[in-house]
Amino acid sequence: MVNQAIGFIDSGIGGITVVREALRQLPNETVYYVGDTARMPYGPRPVDEVIEYTWQMVKFLLTKNIKMLVIACNTATAAALPSLQKKLAIPVIGVIAPGVRGALKATVNKHIGIIATEGTVKSNAYVNRLKAKNPNIVTSQLACPEFVKIVEANQYATVTTQEVVTKKLAFFNDKNIDTLVLGCTHFPLLADVIKNAMGSQVSLVNSGAVAVENVSAMLDELQLNNSGKKSLPDEYFTTGDANSFKQMAGHWLNNQNLDVSHLEITKKGLVL
Amino acid sequence: MVNQAIGFIDSGIGGITVVREALRQLPNETVYYVGDTARMPYGPRPVDEVIEYTWQMVKFLLTKNIKMLVIACNTATAAALPSLQKKLAIPVIGVIAPGVRGALKATVNKHIGIIATEGTVKSNAYVNRLKAKNPNIVTSQLACPEFVKIVEANQYATVTTQEVVTKKLAFFNDKNIDTLVLGCTHFPLLADVIKNAMGSQVSLVNSGAVAVENVSAMLDELQLNNSGKKSLPDEYFTTGDANSFKQMAGHWLNNQNLDVSHLEITKKGLVL
Repeated sequence: MVNQAIGFIDSGIGGITVVREALRQLPNETVYYVGDTARMPYGPRPVDEVIEYTWQMVKFLLTKNIKMLVIACNTATAAALPSLQKKLAIPVIGVIAPGVRGALKATVNKHIGIIATEGTVKSNAYVNRLKAKNPNIVTSQLACPEFVKIVEANQYATVTTQEVVTKKLAFFNDKNIDTLVLGCTHFPLLADVIKNAMGSQVSLVNSGAVAVENVSAMLDELQLNNSGKKSLPDEYFTTGDANSFKQMAGHWLNNQNLDVSHLEITKKGLVL
Repeated sequence: MVNQAIGFIDSGIGGITVVREALRQLPNETVYYVGDTARMPYGPRPVDEVIEYTWQMVKFLLTKNIKMLVIACNTATAAALPSLQKKLAIPVIGVIAPGVRGALKATVNKHIGIIATEGTVKSNAYVNRLKAKNPNIVTSQLACPEFVKIVEANQYATVTTQEVVTKKLAFFNDKNIDTLVLGCTHFPLLADVIKNAMGSQVSLVNSGAVAVENVSAMLDELQLNNSGKKSLPDEYFTTGDANSFKQMAGHWLNNQNLDVSHLEITKKGLVL
C-alpha cells in the first residue's frame, strides 16, 4: 500500500479534466493539484519561462512527498517533460505521448487534426511523435489560444463561444480528418462545443483521459497502487484567487467542498 | 531505432486479436507470434503445466532476439506473468492488468462481469485486481471454456453458436452489469455474437486491445519504438498445422500471405 499522493500540475484550470478522470478511475488515490492561474496562459510564453514556472510547481509538490507526477498541461509537457524525467526520482507522465497513442488508436483514415496552444503547435511534439509511430499519418494542426481564455473566463457554454469555436475549426473543413486531438487540457471543457463544430464523424481524443490510463498502468507496473482506502485528503493549490478556483474546479469535479489554498509567487518559488 | 520484433504468445489463435490491434496501431513494429495450437486449450490445464508450456514458447522467441514480450493469453498471464517479469531482461506485458484498467474506465454503475477460461476464473486475477484498484466494484465472473473451442473450431458465426453463447451469458441477466470483460483473447473473435447476447447497454472490454495501448506506452517510455520503416517481416509459428493456422489467422488479419511455420514439441522445447 502506497498512500502518497499523485501530483498534477497545469497552467490553470485545464488539468482538472485530467484529475476528473483520475478520481473516477482511481478512487483510492490522493490528488495534489497545482494550477498556475496567475501566470496562465502558458501557450504564448517563451519555452524557458514555461520550463521555469513548471519547475516551481514541481518543487512545491516535491515538498509534499508525491509518488508520481502528471504534467497535466500540453505546453509544459512539450517544454519540460524530458528534463523532469531526467532529474526526478519519481515517475513523470506527460499528456502528449498518451494523446498520440489515443489518436493512433482512434483513426481509421489516418488523417489526424491537432488543436493546441501556440507553444505546443510550434514544438511540433504531436506531429513528430505521430509520424515516428506511423509514417503514413497525415496531420494538420491549429493553434487555438482563444479557447484557453474562453475556458479560464468560464465562458464555455455561451452562444458566442459556439460561434467562435465553429468559425475557428472551419480550418479543418477541407482536411478530411476523422480524428481530432484535444492537445490542450483546457479543451475537454469545450468538448460539446467542439463536437458541435466538427460533427459526429470526427473522434475527439482527450489526451488527459489517455494519460490517466498511463498513470493507472504505471501504478500497476511499479506496484505503486494505494490498495487501501484513500487516507490522505485531496488538496488543490492555485497561484490565483483560491475562491474562484474553488468554484470553477468544483463545478467540473462536481464537488463544492474542495480544499483549495493560494500559493504566493516569490523569488524562492511558490509558498503557502 | 530499435527494429527487433515484439513477441506474442498464446495457447492458439486467440492472441491474433491482440496482434490485429498491434499491426493497426504500430505499423512500424515487427511481430513474431507463437500459438501452441497442439496443446490448446490452456484453460482446463493445471497451473504448473501452463507455466511450463508458456516458458517453452518464450524460450523459442528469445532465440529470435525479441525486444518485448506480450503474453496474449489470459490463462498464461494469470499463471506465468510474475515469474516471466522476474526472470526476463526484456519488458513483459500481460493482458489482465490492461483488461482491469479498461473495465474501470468503461464502467459507470460499477458492476463488472468477467468471462474467461476456468484457469483465469479460478485464479481470481481479474476480481482481485479490480477490487484492489476500486473496492466499490461489484464483480461477477463466469468460465466459458466452450467459447474457446468454438473459436478454435472456426464456428464463430453460426446460428448454433449464437444460441450457445446467448444461453450461457443469460447468467448475467440478473447481475446488473454495464461492462463485460472479454477475459480470454479468443473472445473478441466472438464479439458480435456476445454483443447480440448482452445488448447494447453493456460495454465489452477487449483486454488485448488495451494491452496494445500498454505496449505502445512501454515502447515510448523505454524508447524502444522502431521509428524507421518495418525492416524485418512478421513471422508466425504454431505447434499445430501450419496451413490451417495460416488460413484462420489470415482471415482475422485480412492477409492471406502470412509466413507461418510449424514448431515441433520436443523434450528440448519447441524447435523449427
